[in-house]
Amino acid sequence: VESVGEGVTDLQPGDHVLPVFTGECKECRHCKSEESNMCDLLRINTDRGTMLSDGKSRFSKDGKPIYHFLGTSTFSEYTVCHVGSVAKINPAAPLEKVCVLSCGICTGFGATVNVAKPKKGSSVAIFGLGAVGLAAAEGARVSGAARIIGVDLNPNRFEEAKKFGVNEFVNPKDHNKPVQEVIAEMTDGGVDRSVECTGSVQAMISAFECVHDGWGVAVLVGVPSKDDAFKTHPVNFLNERTLKGTFYGNYKPKSDLPGVVEMYMNKEL
Amino acid sequence: VESVGEGVTDLQPGDHVLPVFTGECKECRHCKSEESNMCDLLRINTDRGTMLSDGKSRFSKDGKPIYHFLGTSTFSEYTVCHVGSVAKINPAAPLEKVCVLSCGICTGFGATVNVAKPKKGSSVAIFGLGAVGLAAAEGARVSGAARIIGVDLNPNRFEEAKKFGVNEFVNPKDHNKPVQEVIAEMTDGGVDRSVECTGSVQAMISAFECVHDGWGVAVLVGVPSKDDAFKTHPVNFLNERTLKGTFYGNYKPKSDLPGVVEMYMNKEL
Repeated sequence: VESVGEGVTDLQPGDHVLPVFTGECKECRHCKSEESNMCDLLRINTDRGTMLSDGKSRFSKDGKPIYHFLGTSTFSEYTVCHVGSVAKINPAAPLEKVCVLSCGICTGFGATVNVAKPKKGSSVAIFGLGAVGLAAAEGARVSGAARIIGVDLNPNRFEEAKKFGVNEFVNPKDHNKPVQEVIAEMTDGGVDRSVECTGSVQAMISAFECVHDGWGVAVLVGVPSKDDAFKTHPVNFLNERTLKGTFYGNYKPKSDLPGVVEMYMNKEL
Repeated sequence: VESVGEGVTDLQPGDHVLPVFTGECKECRHCKSEESNMCDLLRINTDRGTMLSDGKSRFSKDGKPIYHFLGTSTFSEYTVCHVGSVAKINPAAPLEKVCVLSCGICTGFGATVNVAKPKKGSSVAIFGLGAVGLAAAEGARVSGAARIIGVDLNPNRFEEAKKFGVNEFVNPKDHNKPVQEVIAEMTDGGVDRSVECTGSVQAMISAFECVHDGWGVAVLVGVPSKDDAFKTHPVNFLNERTLKGTFYGNYKPKSDLPGVVEMYMNKEL
């Protein structure tokens, strides 16, 4: 932090912070809710592009304004953020490592540990083994899941995924039936939890339909296309399954991110 | 109970019981799970039609077998049930009243208190004000919900519903926009919980889409048609909403039903 604005009391120059694409004003009904992290003031808004205080941008080139992106605009060397969009962290944390916690990594990890909440010894399917999916798998590993089934169309991702606890793999291309049926056969009826990290609506449907009747929970993380429709037979719900979505892994950035950085510092991640 | 079969230890002649359309064997993985009540042995099976012990029916007319229905066949004066399909209850309970707990009433009441779990002071929308919906509303009342919004196409049901705690009403026919939009306007963005008790897939979609971002939970109770498709934009999930279905209100019949009868006896219902 180079300088802080008037009235800012929880930060001072020299603090180490992570700017986060969603914010936490601490005053709206979402911030005051125990369940939500979708701050009314600072949640993701690609239309805004300016600072809340004066409706202006802080960047320009050749006299023309360059607008803010997701409240952080961190592709510049210096940036200006709303105080609610930065989380103060341990100054000993290596910024070039922990910066990934500002977006996808917390999104995937939190989707598993905060939302899917797999029990020790349970089974978890992870759809998509990109960075977000690997973080979701790590969440399952930290939670003590016994079976972590990685699903991806690209088998080159499987070896790397083993480092994050994935211990079984399914490539939908290897089967001539829907992947949810393959997983149901592997797991005597379905997995206990699934986490979808692809953004493909077909993967979302498979992730929901591959969880077990009676207790299965599916969590959607990927960002779908504007015109996508999630479609399933309602009996899949009546058989006591749960479908949830999540946003930034349900983490409240200012409140929770410092603790995730500490987990990294303690080598728990 | 008139007589009990060999090896039955938890019942004896003279006990008062309620036969329940789903059972509880107490030994399968569903019965052993804390979350599920979908007993692998005795869950609803309209194809079975016979007793598990010998694969035969216990009824006949003019020498031809009459098959069992849902494990209970309670439209006869006497019936024969698997021990897992009857719940022993307080012998002082009036059977002509508490018999309704064997099906829809527990389904609706349990959907609210066991699955939707509204907090004190919260808002709940109930879709469908038939017997199941009124029981769901009663669950919201007992949970301390402040706003209980009843949705039904038949306004003749509204007066009766007030006795079960419903204190606001929406008739979708009175509006020229989707009922989920009407409810969002009434509640500054959506209700905290909704319970769908109609079986109409359109009501299921509305019930899901009328809950609030960040913490809203919708519970499906109604039995849909075979060809129905539940369809919504996946962003509705990513905004941190939850959709669950339920079966018999998540009650385990032998374990939980006696307690619901006690609630009735204590005038809590």
